[in-house]
Amino acid sequence: MKKSVNIGLIGLGVIGTGVAKVLIERNKRVSEQAGCPIVLKKVAEKDLNKKHDVDINPNLLTTNADDILSDADIDIVIELIGGERPALDFVKKALASGKHVVTANKELISKHGPELFALADANKVDILYEASVGGGIPLTNSFKQDLLASNITSIQAIINGTTNYILSNMAKEGIEFNEAVKRAQALGYAEADPTNDIEGVDAMYKVAILATLAFRTTVTPDDVYLEGISKVAKRDFEYAKELGYAIKLMAIAKKENGAIELRVHPTFVPEDLLMAQVNGVFNAVQVEGDLVGRVIFYGQGAGPQPTSSAIVTDVINIAQDILLGYSRRPKFKLNTAKQIKPMADINTRYYIRINVADTPGVLAQIAKTLGDEQISIASAIQKAVDEKTQSAELVLMTHFARESAMQSALAKLESLSAVREVSNFIRVEA
Amino acid sequence: MKKSVNIGLIGLGVIGTGVAKVLIERNKRVSEQAGCPIVLKKVAEKDLNKKHDVDINPNLLTTNADDILSDADIDIVIELIGGERPALDFVKKALASGKHVVTANKELISKHGPELFALADANKVDILYEASVGGGIPLTNSFKQDLLASNITSIQAIINGTTNYILSNMAKEGIEFNEAVKRAQALGYAEADPTNDIEGVDAMYKVAILATLAFRTTVTPDDVYLEGISKVAKRDFEYAKELGYAIKLMAIAKKENGAIELRVHPTFVPEDLLMAQVNGVFNAVQVEGDLVGRVIFYGQGAGPQPTSSAIVTDVINIAQDILLGYSRRPKFKLNTAKQIKPMADINTRYYIRINVADTPGVLAQIAKTLGDEQISIASAIQKAVDEKTQSAELVLMTHFARESAMQSALAKLESLSAVREVSNFIRVEA
Repeated sequence: MKKSVNIGLIGLGVIGTGVAKVLIERNKRVSEQAGCPIVLKKVAEKDLNKKHDVDINPNLLTTNADDILSDADIDIVIELIGGERPALDFVKKALASGKHVVTANKELISKHGPELFALADANKVDILYEASVGGGIPLTNSFKQDLLASNITSIQAIINGTTNYILSNMAKEGIEFNEAVKRAQALGYAEADPTNDIEGVDAMYKVAILATLAFRTTVTPDDVYLEGISKVAKRDFEYAKELGYAIKLMAIAKKENGAIELRVHPTFVPEDLLMAQVNGVFNAVQVEGDLVGRVIFYGQGAGPQPTSSAIVTDVINIAQDILLGYSRRPKFKLNTAKQIKPMADINTRYYIRINVADTPGVLAQIAKTLGDEQISIASAIQKAVDEKTQSAELVLMTHFARESAMQSALAKLESLSAVREVSNFIRVEA
Repeated sequence: MKKSVNIGLIGLGVIGTGVAKVLIERNKRVSEQAGCPIVLKKVAEKDLNKKHDVDINPNLLTTNADDILSDADIDIVIELIGGERPALDFVKKALASGKHVVTANKELISKHGPELFALADANKVDILYEASVGGGIPLTNSFKQDLLASNITSIQAIINGTTNYILSNMAKEGIEFNEAVKRAQALGYAEADPTNDIEGVDAMYKVAILATLAFRTTVTPDDVYLEGISKVAKRDFEYAKELGYAIKLMAIAKKENGAIELRVHPTFVPEDLLMAQVNGVFNAVQVEGDLVGRVIFYGQGAGPQPTSSAIVTDVINIAQDILLGYSRRPKFKLNTAKQIKPMADINTRYYIRINVADTPGVLAQIAKTLGDEQISIASAIQKAVDEKTQSAELVLMTHFARESAMQSALAKLESLSAVREVSNFIRVEA
């Protein structure tokens, strides 16, 4: 029986520091859960001059990740440098050397997951990534172990805390997008360059990981239709409220007749649904399965403590397996065949906000344009906005329509003389 | 390597029928997930004359559970007869014969869990019970595998669908308790004799199971303070709404300085919290841990389909372990020491509704009585209710107070001449 399980940690940023703290300060607890001592043996960090808020024996520190990857005594490598390279090379080398890997790297797993899972299999080790989606919320094990009997039909997820904070703040304070971004930055909820969050890239990585888990197939970020939140305006929130909706950046994955639809975009969510009540930096993942029905997992999707919780849990699970002399759990088999539904083919409802000339017959003209594309209107609100320019704002909620028809209708609407501008259109989910 | 994993199912009621359907109709899927054929080999049901909505080969049916318990070819026994006896005898015999057990029996697990876990250990088999709490919501694995790094400090759970349906309906429709019970019965959400649900017994079993998982100690139903929902009145909902609260039957388990407090009672929950938005027959379990923060698991807590999802998942997990030749997961160790906090020692806030004589000085008298017990008032509402009898209703929200002080104050209030009746008092959680 092994006397200890030895850990090499690569990356001592905010999350790495949090993980090191847990492994050091809660060593007794962690070791008890694992069944043997868990020893943090080496920590690789490029910039050792930076101050780190954790008391690590200086002898454990190195600037060279290879000191960990080449150390035959290290059983589990925790990769926390993020990004695609050199993380991919490090993780591959670790797996190829028969080391287990724990990672929080959503870009890596979403882009290279299947390749890495196969490499792990071939080397009889495991690669776990609970922290890559939803921080401390148990998600990967739920899909790998708990929801096995159901055919999963859909995932709707709020999985980016930054955008959820911004949108919640716009709704609550009645402010415009740019102002909300500034406030989020001031509070540390958005980065100096928030592009990856507000354009939905982070959510795209995460939904690819969730869809791969849920549908047992190799979904990649390229398969996901992507639209960020920067065009959502204060006025959209006003109409959403009037109509009984919240606006959320939803990551959606659905499976119907073998085809998978994947999209990340601002979404109208009926305000009586629990998902509409998920505010601030919190995350929530709603899963629907044919037996289990609707299940929601909610919690903190980011931050060093919840993320450490997930990473250390992965470490404990692998350590338990190592002690049992048992390699790679058989839980999770991927089918490489997949059929991605083109965005043009999705069916959903739409909110459309149009700036029109305030003259008779405008609504009839617009309704006809939509009708020609088989899109029917569920409700309409018209408000005068500027008497001088005689413009009005027309807000339409449609019944279910096909995306291709809607895109075609939007192009035609733009060309109507009475339409000054299609100000926004947002998809609606229930 | 084993060619198949053989199942014996005891109990063909609503849930048993659902499980048999999944094992038969989804056999390909279930077997694929398990890694080998899962064979439903025998089904024991006392009353074979009853019609069952599943197409089972009549040769598999028996009226004698012992045909399953004595069959050396059966690897996993699924116990779905419910109740304490004879379920306990069946499960003990199964474990003692080296059979794994899957059960949905909350009474059995909450009362005899530790004894059964030890018996399973001694016989190198497993006993899983995901379906005993929260239907298809993944809970037991989340505690056993996912929330390992955190010190769990509290659980607040809505884990009885019948009472949540009744309370949601009272809130929404403005009806009294008896009427809401009748409506729930008409819809099949409450049994003809709903005592176990409305008096909180079902929730008590479930919170004992959750607390055992969360705190790693042997909590039993006897440790839980219990109060049902039958005294919650329409008027309480009116005041709750006015004050910004929902009323829920909450199952609460908290741990502080080593002492565990356990209670099931009607509870005021601030309506801006997600838990206040859990309506109808849905369940939700909110867990707080020092690293993971606040996590909520939400879903359908009952019904044959969600429950089957949990049971079949347990079967698949055990089958995977059998195929790996690996007995009893090492995940979950119980500490038998426990310290239960007496109800008198808990600290919480209170809502008190008092019928008083509508005369000057009443509020001062009541405030003094509370003040003498170190209870301070956070807010007060007074409403005239009956001019003829000159009675008024006084509603008080207190700051945090000790339960023993509150009980003492309530007794004193009852004896004040100006107090006609303490109509209700309900604890408040945030």
